[in-house]
Amino acid sequence: MSAQNSFAIDFLETCRARVDAELDRCISRESSSDRLQAAMRYSVLGGGKRIRPALCLAAARAVGDTGDNALAPACAVELIHAYSLIHDDLPAMDDDDLRRGRPTTHIAFDEATAILAGDALQALAFGLLADAAGPSESARLSMVRELARASGHGGMVGGQAIDLEAVGKTLTLAQLEVMHRHKTGALIEASVLIGALSSPRTQERDLEALAGYARALGLAFQVQDDLLDIEGDTRVIGKRQGSDAARAKPTYPALLGVDGARARLVELLDNAQQSLAVFGPEADPLRAMADYVVARNH
Amino acid sequence: MSAQNSFAIDFLETCRARVDAELDRCISRESSSDRLQAAMRYSVLGGGKRIRPALCLAAARAVGDTGDNALAPACAVELIHAYSLIHDDLPAMDDDDLRRGRPTTHIAFDEATAILAGDALQALAFGLLADAAGPSESARLSMVRELARASGHGGMVGGQAIDLEAVGKTLTLAQLEVMHRHKTGALIEASVLIGALSSPRTQERDLEALAGYARALGLAFQVQDDLLDIEGDTRVIGKRQGSDAARAKPTYPALLGVDGARARLVELLDNAQQSLAVFGPEADPLRAMADYVVARNH
Repeated sequence: MSAQNSFAIDFLETCRARVDAELDRCISRESSSDRLQAAMRYSVLGGGKRIRPALCLAAARAVGDTGDNALAPACAVELIHAYSLIHDDLPAMDDDDLRRGRPTTHIAFDEATAILAGDALQALAFGLLADAAGPSESARLSMVRELARASGHGGMVGGQAIDLEAVGKTLTLAQLEVMHRHKTGALIEASVLIGALSSPRTQERDLEALAGYARALGLAFQVQDDLLDIEGDTRVIGKRQGSDAARAKPTYPALLGVDGARARLVELLDNAQQSLAVFGPEADPLRAMADYVVARNH
Repeated sequence: MSAQNSFAIDFLETCRARVDAELDRCISRESSSDRLQAAMRYSVLGGGKRIRPALCLAAARAVGDTGDNALAPACAVELIHAYSLIHDDLPAMDDDDLRRGRPTTHIAFDEATAILAGDALQALAFGLLADAAGPSESARLSMVRELARASGHGGMVGGQAIDLEAVGKTLTLAQLEVMHRHKTGALIEASVLIGALSSPRTQERDLEALAGYARALGLAFQVQDDLLDIEGDTRVIGKRQGSDAARAKPTYPALLGVDGARARLVELLDNAQQSLAVFGPEADPLRAMADYVVARNH
């Protein structure tokens, strides 16, 4: 394990502890249904690497914030991610029964509760941003706007729709990248930008550099996911290995070959790191996170 | 038809034209998937009385606003309502194939597209509030907070979960009202409060009076829905008549008898009108809306 990777793992671990405690707190607020709340807790607090919240906190650090302003925004991003996984796993969507080594939410509860838990988590995410204690009113509104844009029909949900339409079709590399830029890239980019927006010190050029970093990282993340789907085993990655290929989903290795996909991964990592050249050591957590994403084995 | 009811119908008609044009505009913005966007348009622009947006605009009028500030917020509330109908109609939920006299979204498209269309409409609603041109930053944040609270696990989605759990069970009147206060009442209350929040002239006591009006109206709306489910015919109400009874859902007529439910409706209408006593003629649209809700036949 490289020193950089170890630094990323330590950073992720620290973020995870803070984020998990805050997620626990905000999901425990008043709910009208114990079963619904249990499903929300199950899906949000049942593990996960918290890569998006860590990127949010790392981006806040890069623009000189200590990261306290970014904690609620980091949780908001994770709630959106969690809701998208619940809905993605539904029988009408990817029909997955295993996630992070445990039964998916609609298996552990039921389909209706899973749909509602996802819906409630999305609302909670926007509520958290509106209530975030540190950032200015203007910053909170920018974060709401960014999260809505990134997660809606022009972002994540739009990407999921493209993905569904692509099953069984041959995509070009350009089409595959459009899909991933929406489906996973948009929320990863939003995680970074929302982290930066939470700090009063952020300049427009910081946002541009961070957007470049996040766009490259988002694609790198997906290339690595595709490679792991071929190379990993179910025990480590927590879902059935080869499940993308089994559903005839287009992937980077299918289009570029495994070596070609690995080369694309290195190129994207390089792009991500180059984008951070304008920052000093305060962006080291972001740099370590990029290396970590490429080196991760699950 | 009473003069008051005719006034309400004219007001609703004017609101509907404005709201439909604005909804059309905001759904037509960039989307990643034509099919997803078509499903969003189908479910949002395929009719509907626009009662919630009209309440939003009427509440803004009651606090002295001309209503332009409330147009985007009115659309946001309707988008939340539209998404909840799509998800409610899914096979795993109420399994309805007919809505407003047309095939439900998952029948007209497919289940996955319907789930995603609902998800995207929720994100769009919060984005609209963040972008609303007239209201102050502080007001927009209050509206995001209110919409998240009203639509999330402590509000509408929580109420849907209670509803699912209640199928086949006998509820007390108190339990039935808790369910409806969440499932439909919370969003109706939010429609009124968000309308008022959009105006810079709103005082705390206005919000209290309007909340009282909206709470009574929300329950009245549900009592009338239950009565229509028994008394209406499919052609007029646009869904299968008696469908609640067929699913053994608890209803006001089942608990109170038809006459008892009618008496409760009159009592709630009276409560709603009393709450508006602090306002002058500027609250006439709200008064007319309350009469309309009770008199409507679909």
